[in-house]
Amino acid sequence: MLKNFVKTAQPDKEAVKAALKVEQAKLAANQMRIKEAKLPVMVIFEGWGSAGKGSVMGEVIKSIDPRFFRVATMDAEPTEEEKRKPFLYRYFLEIPEAGKFKFFDTCWMEEVTDGVLDGSIDEETYAKRVKSINITERQLTDNGYLVMKFFFHISKKEQKKRLDLLLADKNTKWRVDKEDLWENEHYNECLDVYNKYLEDTNRSNVPWYIIDAKNKKWAELQVLQFLNLGIDTAIKNHSLAVPILQNTFPLKPMPLLDEVDLSKSLTDEEYKKELDRLQGELRALHNKLYRKKIPVIIAYEGMDAAGKGGNIKRITAALDPRGYVVEPIASPEPHEKARHYLWRFWNRLPKTGHITIFDRTWYGRVMVERLEGFCSENDWQRAYNEMNEFERELTDWGAVVIKFWVQIDNQTQLERFTDRQNTPEKQWKITDEDWRNREKWDLYVDAINEMLQKTSTVNAPWYILESVDKKYARIKALQIVVDELNKACKNKK
Amino acid sequence: MLKNFVKTAQPDKEAVKAALKVEQAKLAANQMRIKEAKLPVMVIFEGWGSAGKGSVMGEVIKSIDPRFFRVATMDAEPTEEEKRKPFLYRYFLEIPEAGKFKFFDTCWMEEVTDGVLDGSIDEETYAKRVKSINITERQLTDNGYLVMKFFFHISKKEQKKRLDLLLADKNTKWRVDKEDLWENEHYNECLDVYNKYLEDTNRSNVPWYIIDAKNKKWAELQVLQFLNLGIDTAIKNHSLAVPILQNTFPLKPMPLLDEVDLSKSLTDEEYKKELDRLQGELRALHNKLYRKKIPVIIAYEGMDAAGKGGNIKRITAALDPRGYVVEPIASPEPHEKARHYLWRFWNRLPKTGHITIFDRTWYGRVMVERLEGFCSENDWQRAYNEMNEFERELTDWGAVVIKFWVQIDNQTQLERFTDRQNTPEKQWKITDEDWRNREKWDLYVDAINEMLQKTSTVNAPWYILESVDKKYARIKALQIVVDELNKACKNKK
Repeated sequence: MLKNFVKTAQPDKEAVKAALKVEQAKLAANQMRIKEAKLPVMVIFEGWGSAGKGSVMGEVIKSIDPRFFRVATMDAEPTEEEKRKPFLYRYFLEIPEAGKFKFFDTCWMEEVTDGVLDGSIDEETYAKRVKSINITERQLTDNGYLVMKFFFHISKKEQKKRLDLLLADKNTKWRVDKEDLWENEHYNECLDVYNKYLEDTNRSNVPWYIIDAKNKKWAELQVLQFLNLGIDTAIKNHSLAVPILQNTFPLKPMPLLDEVDLSKSLTDEEYKKELDRLQGELRALHNKLYRKKIPVIIAYEGMDAAGKGGNIKRITAALDPRGYVVEPIASPEPHEKARHYLWRFWNRLPKTGHITIFDRTWYGRVMVERLEGFCSENDWQRAYNEMNEFERELTDWGAVVIKFWVQIDNQTQLERFTDRQNTPEKQWKITDEDWRNREKWDLYVDAINEMLQKTSTVNAPWYILESVDKKYARIKALQIVVDELNKACKNKK
Repeated sequence: MLKNFVKTAQPDKEAVKAALKVEQAKLAANQMRIKEAKLPVMVIFEGWGSAGKGSVMGEVIKSIDPRFFRVATMDAEPTEEEKRKPFLYRYFLEIPEAGKFKFFDTCWMEEVTDGVLDGSIDEETYAKRVKSINITERQLTDNGYLVMKFFFHISKKEQKKRLDLLLADKNTKWRVDKEDLWENEHYNECLDVYNKYLEDTNRSNVPWYIIDAKNKKWAELQVLQFLNLGIDTAIKNHSLAVPILQNTFPLKPMPLLDEVDLSKSLTDEEYKKELDRLQGELRALHNKLYRKKIPVIIAYEGMDAAGKGGNIKRITAALDPRGYVVEPIASPEPHEKARHYLWRFWNRLPKTGHITIFDRTWYGRVMVERLEGFCSENDWQRAYNEMNEFERELTDWGAVVIKFWVQIDNQTQLERFTDRQNTPEKQWKITDEDWRNREKWDLYVDAINEMLQKTSTVNAPWYILESVDKKYARIKALQIVVDELNKACKNKK
């Protein structure tokens, strides 16, 4: 794309000035339109060093009320903390809220192309990164994000001229770093890498726009024109339905819920013995995986009153409190609701060597959100694949992902609800909502069966915990966690 | 995609049967919905030999009224006539009408993968073909087409079993050809090629669906489920606006219309001399390009009464009538209107060695259709790129594409209109519509300027013919045609 990029004839100075005024006014009007439409707008600036990304961005945001935009500067190296998260983590966290702009001063492109150029990213990793980026950009647009990608383009000669000018003045000298000079010296090599990346990530839902950046005002005009056009299109497509992709993840066969044998149980004696043994093993493993820097995600879902809380407690009892966290997932907060539904889970990922236990998870999308109509049919139908992609991102990063479905039968739930209702110290555990959900038992069973069938991937399978006998469920969970962590520790040198 | 394809567990026979009934009824209902929504549905069946594409297609269409679908069987070699057209021609001609299904028994995939396997398509051609296909599939979905792509997948063993069974029976033996046997013997090699093609052409707007084709009923069910889901999504997205892509074609700078010097003229003597000379040259060139099999497309657009007809006559006067055709383009017929707006031009392409002169063209999209509101704003904004892509397809095929804009000034038009009105034998040339269009002169000038700026690509540039003096315009046109054909004949051995 970059290689055969041909500049549009640049209008004369006065024409640019006049057009800028028009586009700036449009952008000012568009900030209100995106607010009303709750459209999140992610604007990515990439390009050559000294191409003027920063100064054009500075101009563009002048048309927008400061309450409606944020700037994310991503060109620094990831921090030590960020290096212990998946590649996409620090970017995903920065995605805009509904109705607001987020301007990225470089984004995932630069990290990847820099890596290719300095040799730290080989072909295989490059292909993996590009795949992750294409998936993520598609997930964003599928979920109603507008993602505008600009590449600021200048010639080798122009870049040299600018660098020389900066270097000549002792007040601006500091702005030129080694990387800029290297880039100019190796301009053609960089051009190859940038060009390939642009072609590999150019998709009609998230196309690249190449900005002829030789003149600052003209560059600003091009950005504004594309941005306003993009916003128009996105607002028109407000309630877009997205094609449902076929599952391409290897799946583990799962039984239907009513085929699960819930009569399994343990005696108190068996329970105590096993509990001691397994918690001991888990304690030892926790140290090991800390040293091996393996991140662990344990996800709990289950019927109300199935015993998730008690089950989790038996896991955490064996863990060093400095190395794990339990994340109870309730309804999303407003700032969470305003973002991609997986954002709040990205936000809660463990760092390497740590364990995060989710008490309820992203699967709310295909259960409560589906059944209560909190998202559209198209949204939850798409979500199976999106969640498989999300978990694949995690296991590719090296995480162990264990998903528990804690199951009881309808009658057991009724008994436990009644018990909670009648026991003063347990009454906080039961709400009207629980009773309302219970009325939808059959609908939930259908939705859960579909979820278990469609998201039990080989890399992140579901495990059903038969929890009519809570002791049995706890021991089973502990055994699975111990087995999986053992496996992971053995596989990682 | 194909390599890590994992089958979904196949439901038992009774469950498949029950689900089939549901999906068949849905499809029957969907045929009415697509008719109402005027949705054209293109269903492509690709896959391994003997995977059962034909028989599943036979079942699927049983749910549809014969008036609402057509089948296109594309697996035969292109005819000699078709080989003289661009690669995509014979497929593009087959695209469905609005509100109807078209089922393709193999499509452009097979021609490409076969070519790779038999060595007739090298890497470079493969890349070009894939690019053309991705562009075309995107153009179809951008223009409101639903394109569903199915790949029928069976294992090597299963294919062998089926081939053996067919061969064993003298009544079915004829159905196995050499290619089928070759494919089975070279299963893994084919798998590589198919897998790469599927990955190279998998886009979220036109995703591939891989069908586990081991069991016929189960395969039918999978096809029906995806097809019904796809139709639902497409109908929901009825008035989708599509992001406008940046121009990536090298452009020739063009003057604005009011910068054009319309005072240029020739004396009668100069005119006659030049006319004789150029027509002589053109006559000779026509033979040459026939022998060299160069296809030529000459496109005329211009202001009403600018003298297009007379200009075209001076070209055709020099041509052998067996080697050219003039295509006057009026409003589209209903069967043309029901298809992609470029379809009627694909349908009129010359074969190699022939000349087609279009009297008005596909550019109606960004002039009359834009100004009269016959298409949406998003449609005509997108069209510049779509037409550049279309013409690039033609020049990549080896065609010479010459585009003339015949220009006069407002006053000259008025004089010619008045003359036509007042001269009985010219009255057929002037209509109320001409007068109405004339009132929109300024709007047309703006639209034409935008068109000339955005579509004068280096490979298919616009030439402005100053036609206040018609003689001047005719000689200029002839000279350009002669020059371009000379160049093309020299470049082609």
